[in-house]
Amino acid sequence: MRIDIISVVPDLIKSPFEGSIMQRAIEKGFVEVHFHNLRKYSTNNYKQVDDYQYGGGAGMVMMVEPIDKCISELKSERDYDEIIYMSPDGETLNQKQANQLSLKGNLMILCGHYKGVDQRVRDLFITKEISIGDYVLSGGELGAAVLCDSIIRLIPGVLGDETSALTDCFQDNLLSPPIYTRPADYKGHKVPEILLSGHQQKIEAWRDDKALERTKALRPDILED
Amino acid sequence: MRIDIISVVPDLIKSPFEGSIMQRAIEKGFVEVHFHNLRKYSTNNYKQVDDYQYGGGAGMVMMVEPIDKCISELKSERDYDEIIYMSPDGETLNQKQANQLSLKGNLMILCGHYKGVDQRVRDLFITKEISIGDYVLSGGELGAAVLCDSIIRLIPGVLGDETSALTDCFQDNLLSPPIYTRPADYKGHKVPEILLSGHQQKIEAWRDDKALERTKALRPDILED
Repeated sequence: MRIDIISVVPDLIKSPFEGSIMQRAIEKGFVEVHFHNLRKYSTNNYKQVDDYQYGGGAGMVMMVEPIDKCISELKSERDYDEIIYMSPDGETLNQKQANQLSLKGNLMILCGHYKGVDQRVRDLFITKEISIGDYVLSGGELGAAVLCDSIIRLIPGVLGDETSALTDCFQDNLLSPPIYTRPADYKGHKVPEILLSGHQQKIEAWRDDKALERTKALRPDILED
Repeated sequence: MRIDIISVVPDLIKSPFEGSIMQRAIEKGFVEVHFHNLRKYSTNNYKQVDDYQYGGGAGMVMMVEPIDKCISELKSERDYDEIIYMSPDGETLNQKQANQLSLKGNLMILCGHYKGVDQRVRDLFITKEISIGDYVLSGGELGAAVLCDSIIRLIPGVLGDETSALTDCFQDNLLSPPIYTRPADYKGHKVPEILLSGHQQKIEAWRDDKALERTKALRPDILED
């Protein structure tokens, strides 16, 4: 997989790609991630990429022309499965969508910053708008990092033990059961005895029960999906 | 405001705090953000902070003792309004919750990594569990960065122009209207004429209409909140 991220402040999300699972996936060759600084595509000497809103109002708007130049250059080099714009009014990201995107070849992700991008960018170039949740962030950069993390860890081979992703939260429309590690007794707070029993079948049954119980209590809405 | 972030890989989210609005908020003194590496609180020579799950299964679990030591040390120094654990099965973050948290004084955020933390951590120390959405990430770090960004930009004075946050998506249970900037005509794609009219009252009415129209089309669910 190849991911191209377009941003006016790409340095903002360099570190999430330089450690943990995303770094390993890049190093092992499962994914290439390329950052593109939009200022490089500015059409004037001031490296300007944003301007005031038509009609007045607070906040700067990212101009269509530098974005057009950047996206067009990338599209001339390869085909993209999706050109994604991170936006709070996009389709809300969920695990199912992450699963689907993890099967793609080339993804482009445009991050808005300031007030967002000129509407014509969305109308002309974007094939999918994604929101990571119902809240506003300073820009699309953290959303892009979240999207990449959710996708990259699902590429087969990226996680050391593939069952680790299969038993994750949401994968069967269930939350995870509680998990415990040593010590068995911490200041009088004990691990449930069943988990120490060594009886694998009973343990799995207990986990299934707890996962269902927790989902019913906390997120009955996802059971029906 | 003061935010303490506890993680086994705090470097993973250094860059989001070193640019744009979070950096400015820190430099201007609106917020202090402190990172705590959990390995510092390990109780053995291998700096171990995780171990296998009781009952078997893929993925490592973060142990209770180092987390207890870290949280207890911080709590001995000041009172915390909330001790937050980032988890996909927590309460889903939304703009209202971000608004509420932006009014707090001291927040502690614990990031799980690997499979998550020992359930006893959640039972004994955590006052609030927050999820940024229905998808699984490599750890709670990106979630913590997202949570911080959503909160910090709402602290009065952080954004250059305060109305910029007030007109954001979700603030009135509405999505934003479309926005445009120069040029008025880009390769034949024109900015709506009303926005060039200079008639402020009509422009606001148009924006209200468009915001409502877009919300009805894309997110009718948030209108009723």
